[in-house]
Amino acid sequence: MEPIRRIAVSTGGGDAPGLNAVIRAVAIAAFRHGWECIGIRDGYNGLFLPEQYPQGGLIALTPDRVRGITHLGGTILGTTNRGNPMKFPTPQPDGSLAEVDRTDELLGRFREHHIDALISIGGDGSLTIANHFAQKGLRVIGVPKTIDNDLAGTVITFGFDTAVSFATECVDRLHSTAESHGRVMVVEVMGRYAGWIALNTGVSSSSDVILLPEIPYQMEPVLATLRARAAAGKRYAIVIVAEGAKPAGGGHAVIEKRLGAAERLGGAGERVAKDIAEALGQETRHVVLGHLLRGGSPTTFDRLISLRFGAAAVRALAEGQSGIMVALDPPTVRYVPLADATSRMKTVPLDCDTIRTARELGICLGD
Amino acid sequence: MEPIRRIAVSTGGGDAPGLNAVIRAVAIAAFRHGWECIGIRDGYNGLFLPEQYPQGGLIALTPDRVRGITHLGGTILGTTNRGNPMKFPTPQPDGSLAEVDRTDELLGRFREHHIDALISIGGDGSLTIANHFAQKGLRVIGVPKTIDNDLAGTVITFGFDTAVSFATECVDRLHSTAESHGRVMVVEVMGRYAGWIALNTGVSSSSDVILLPEIPYQMEPVLATLRARAAAGKRYAIVIVAEGAKPAGGGHAVIEKRLGAAERLGGAGERVAKDIAEALGQETRHVVLGHLLRGGSPTTFDRLISLRFGAAAVRALAEGQSGIMVALDPPTVRYVPLADATSRMKTVPLDCDTIRTARELGICLGD
Amino acid sequence: MEPIRRIAVSTGGGDAPGLNAVIRAVAIAAFRHGWECIGIRDGYNGLFLPEQYPQGGLIALTPDRVRGITHLGGTILGTTNRGNPMKFPTPQPDGSLAEVDRTDELLGRFREHHIDALISIGGDGSLTIANHFAQKGLRVIGVPKTIDNDLAGTVITFGFDTAVSFATECVDRLHSTAESHGRVMVVEVMGRYAGWIALNTGVSSSSDVILLPEIPYQMEPVLATLRARAAAGKRYAIVIVAEGAKPAGGGHAVIEKRLGAAERLGGAGERVAKDIAEALGQETRHVVLGHLLRGGSPTTFDRLISLRFGAAAVRALAEGQSGIMVALDPPTVRYVPLADATSRMKTVPLDCDTIRTARELGICLGD
Amino acid sequence: MEPIRRIAVSTGGGDAPGLNAVIRAVAIAAFRHGWECIGIRDGYNGLFLPEQYPQGGLIALTPDRVRGITHLGGTILGTTNRGNPMKFPTPQPDGSLAEVDRTDELLGRFREHHIDALISIGGDGSLTIANHFAQKGLRVIGVPKTIDNDLAGTVITFGFDTAVSFATECVDRLHSTAESHGRVMVVEVMGRYAGWIALNTGVSSSSDVILLPEIPYQMEPVLATLRARAAAGKRYAIVIVAEGAKPAGGGHAVIEKRLGAAERLGGAGERVAKDIAEALGQETRHVVLGHLLRGGSPTTFDRLISLRFGAAAVRALAEGQSGIMVALDPPTVRYVPLADATSRMKTVPLDCDTIRTARELGICLGD
Repeated sequence: MEPIRRIAVSTGGGDAPGLNAVIRAVAIAAFRHGWECIGIRDGYNGLFLPEQYPQGGLIALTPDRVRGITHLGGTILGTTNRGNPMKFPTPQPDGSLAEVDRTDELLGRFREHHIDALISIGGDGSLTIANHFAQKGLRVIGVPKTIDNDLAGTVITFGFDTAVSFATECVDRLHSTAESHGRVMVVEVMGRYAGWIALNTGVSSSSDVILLPEIPYQMEPVLATLRARAAAGKRYAIVIVAEGAKPAGGGHAVIEKRLGAAERLGGAGERVAKDIAEALGQETRHVVLGHLLRGGSPTTFDRLISLRFGAAAVRALAEGQSGIMVALDPPTVRYVPLADATSRMKTVPLDCDTIRTARELGICLGD
Repeated sequence: MEPIRRIAVSTGGGDAPGLNAVIRAVAIAAFRHGWECIGIRDGYNGLFLPEQYPQGGLIALTPDRVRGITHLGGTILGTTNRGNPMKFPTPQPDGSLAEVDRTDELLGRFREHHIDALISIGGDGSLTIANHFAQKGLRVIGVPKTIDNDLAGTVITFGFDTAVSFATECVDRLHSTAESHGRVMVVEVMGRYAGWIALNTGVSSSSDVILLPEIPYQMEPVLATLRARAAAGKRYAIVIVAEGAKPAGGGHAVIEKRLGAAERLGGAGERVAKDIAEALGQETRHVVLGHLLRGGSPTTFDRLISLRFGAAAVRALAEGQSGIMVALDPPTVRYVPLADATSRMKTVPLDCDTIRTARELGICLGD
Repeated sequence: MEPIRRIAVSTGGGDAPGLNAVIRAVAIAAFRHGWECIGIRDGYNGLFLPEQYPQGGLIALTPDRVRGITHLGGTILGTTNRGNPMKFPTPQPDGSLAEVDRTDELLGRFREHHIDALISIGGDGSLTIANHFAQKGLRVIGVPKTIDNDLAGTVITFGFDTAVSFATECVDRLHSTAESHGRVMVVEVMGRYAGWIALNTGVSSSSDVILLPEIPYQMEPVLATLRARAAAGKRYAIVIVAEGAKPAGGGHAVIEKRLGAAERLGGAGERVAKDIAEALGQETRHVVLGHLLRGGSPTTFDRLISLRFGAAAVRALAEGQSGIMVALDPPTVRYVPLADATSRMKTVPLDCDTIRTARELGICLGD
Repeated sequence: MEPIRRIAVSTGGGDAPGLNAVIRAVAIAAFRHGWECIGIRDGYNGLFLPEQYPQGGLIALTPDRVRGITHLGGTILGTTNRGNPMKFPTPQPDGSLAEVDRTDELLGRFREHHIDALISIGGDGSLTIANHFAQKGLRVIGVPKTIDNDLAGTVITFGFDTAVSFATECVDRLHSTAESHGRVMVVEVMGRYAGWIALNTGVSSSSDVILLPEIPYQMEPVLATLRARAAAGKRYAIVIVAEGAKPAGGGHAVIEKRLGAAERLGGAGERVAKDIAEALGQETRHVVLGHLLRGGSPTTFDRLISLRFGAAAVRALAEGQSGIMVALDPPTVRYVPLADATSRMKTVPLDCDTIRTARELGICLGD
């Protein structure tokens, strides 16, 4: 195998606290190997659509360029949510747009720019693309990124601790207001398919109910929990709802019928709040934390694992690896085939320790 | 005047960070005067409806009872949002509820419990009631409480710094996500009649647009600001909207007409987000911070002024004052007649220094 | 085995953020099993020296008693640093104090109070005592507690994340001042025998040098690192020193000789700061974070694992376990014989992933 | 007066959170006037010793250059602690260094670079120099900067709220440890001549004793306070000591004699801790927060007043002002002659409201 002289870094998917720390670690570790390190702006657009970047779509990630960015939210590589090169929206002769696989073209650009290897930081989608590149011969290492912690192959990924920490801080704030005003507060957090954020936030913040995508919920046990609290003189409650939580069977049938199909039912949290208010006649409010959980400065925990992931990705390249993702199996980092990491989603196992803890602490899981 | 032997503390209105610090300072300062200090649960309900409190509606606020509460959100005196004794919902012979002035009855209870003076912590409504008591002869000192900072007579009140600080932290988090995703983020904050939270948050967080109740907004300057940013290559923006911000004239006429009167338009933030998305065709999200800004641990600034307010309220009683509110005129505390404090609302003066700063920093105020 | 009806909780050793969360989880999980839960004040003193506690040395840990304590630092069970019952300072006939093994007496007290099982939260010392009780027939479960993360058998324990997070925040603050003033800042953190806090803090905070007890340090590589920074125009540096860091061989010979044995050399950080100032002639300051790292509100991560540890301890009792410690092997909790956990210390392995990361990021480890 | 086309910004003295926010506001407000804005590196060195700056000693502060810096600690203008041009260390023919007034030379450099006005951000020392420039004809506006809040003419200045907030957070952390370990904790904070930080921190954090430079302290009342706590069953206490706190009369005579003049007595905090340990025989620890209070991200309060100060400084120039400092007289900003601001120090008035509050809350002030 030819020696590496220049590597590129790309970030894909949504924002996650820790991205800049990964980038910094990659840049410095590469520099210490004597490799050049290049950042691609806006997913692959900086490489793919250079005409859109008068000042250049590639950034030289020198040690000076990545100085002091470990604790900054966002990413110095720009917008992460960009076109998938395997299904790139491409104008056709008839003026329409078609989704075209343009990965070969992109691989050509890598060669043109003498990029010997790629470190791709992203979730399921970005790592599938990365794996595609690896199969076509580019040396590729993946770094797992998902706020939702739903990526297989790694016990945890960066950004998740920050999201859970901030969600817990928000619930802390709602606690006193819920109590002072005698209200039920329904808090909707991210998690379309996996309930990790809802579960960890709910347990950490001593919430009363946690509804997850993994457990289709019944309203009866939820209402019973709230009634029992009221009977014990506690006039308030906190209910955590993952955005992907769904009622079991036809739980909302009555309400849905009454409202009519035309009316927007709102998110999972709004729906649960309406059901509770209607059933109990108690003042109920809902809060959506979604947009607040992606950004911000990473927690120390996330900083550290981000730096470790970045260093490990460079180490893997130096060891001749390709087509793998670096993963955390505490206390160590290990390598997982990209194909394994992207073939399934890591949902919350119903018998896991945190679920058991939630039940043992008397938290209702809607079942 | 008879010497004071026992005083009571009551909290009214919504939750505000710092309530417990005020209570603690009152309790300790009273103790050091040799006075007993009694907390009334749930507004005046603990005194008024004792039958609802098997364990007693009054709490002896000894130094031990108020230990370690300075930094806790909420209030140890329970629910603050309770019935106004001047318009108390009272069952009538015919089974209906009528609003009845029962303050005389309440004053009787004060006498029964040998309460010589009252410290009332609250906003406009609670202080109006407090003033009523004072006019009827009870010794009363008010402590100003409003998250919105809209109470006249005091430069600032407790809870406001915490609300602005947390709102600013939330906007910090949204910044990186807005930038990474290339979005306009519209953030709605509390402030129905006064825009203090929106103004201070918007300037502190380097937002692009701030819309206040005090300045009826036009969409044109807002859109022009966003277009100018886009033209300069900045694909994102932050817009802060007070919940009470209103369009000038018929700004929403088209949308309102199209949607029909029957459809809920949503809060001020949602409306502005829709207008921007429609006018610019740019991805726009809105976040409502309302419920998150009332609770939580007070900032150090709020802790200190809460303790100072509590100590000053006891000092005022010891000096023979009544019918006044303690107020902050930095660096000192002074006394203001309750009647002055409750006769008008403190809105943001259009020529104040922070408004000038906002304009000089290029922030659009919608005019 | 007889069914459990009443259990006790004891905390030993220094303060650690998360103690109250463990206590709360134990109390609630026990309550849901129908068990009574008793807290022993001040280590075992509440049980052992009841005459010192007019109000009772045992606290009934009902759900109401443990409400709202998850996020509070310290412990509701009082002073943790108390006498070891295996070597209890006991007055002798001649008036002197002798260390006497009084565990049998203590076991008698457990029986008197009908305590069927003990959950002991503590470090090496407390868990050794707990194991002694277990060997004498009391049902005992240990919960690992060490700020330093140096307890064998568990990947991580509660309090450590809080300590590292706060230390990192402190170093963040020192960064800007070090840079503005052109200084070398030497920061001493806890870790007498194991360098986990120093290592994780140093990497997370992008420090330049990290000195651990596990790697006897040479000043030459340290000075070379600082000189290289200065040569690159960076007039400041951050050096993290574990309190147990030691020079290799006679590193301090010259200074020690010059100062004389009589003069206190100060802690590890002070010594390193003096050496640097002397060798480089650069303004150098040292900061000791020791006392600040034990207290405070636990991070969300620590809250969650504390609650999980508490619930798991009760679960282990319910499953008939004894003589074991609950341990975290992420993502799950498992049981480890107390004898294994207390027979050795968990120091930083020199080839572990975080050490490799530190080196790859160019951080000098003094070797 | 000639119109302004180009202004310069200089920062002097120690680090303070909010410096970057002032710089950003100055740069943007100047830009909106159509003025160029130049930052001088390292005090005046960037202008004065250009040969030391291969990349240039002046930085063009365009809006892009100051983007995203509001919340960053430190200053983008580099080291602040540099030579005073009124007493500049200058090599003499005989090889020695003499302090020479080189302000005329510096004024020449301003002219050479076509700098029409200067905004000087600094404390007593820097503003005295700024006033000197103003008297020689340069248009100069001062912005007050002092962590210690001891600058006359302004009720408050930026950086102080951040320092007090972090000091209070540190004391919060020490509270639980002090209680768990049954110790007296002595916390030394900044404040050589004025006790603002000690006073506000001590009250906010419910400390037991506060010692200020303004009140020479007696040990007797301090010890009496600690003994009273112990008698009430409280085995711990928190003592806040300003670095400039001094015993009244010969309070330390015994200790000083015993130790001998040769031995360093340590700072004020260490001394007080020794006295307490000796007098009470109680375990006592001291913590020095000095270095931690200068850096870090500014609080929201400090961000806002920094931005307001920066905008006001440009506004003052536009209004034709010179030789003045912008000052905060809440809620407004006003102008104060530089000569007034630098002619005396603002110490804590012994009858101020916060001192009264401290006494009313039972805090011992050492008198």
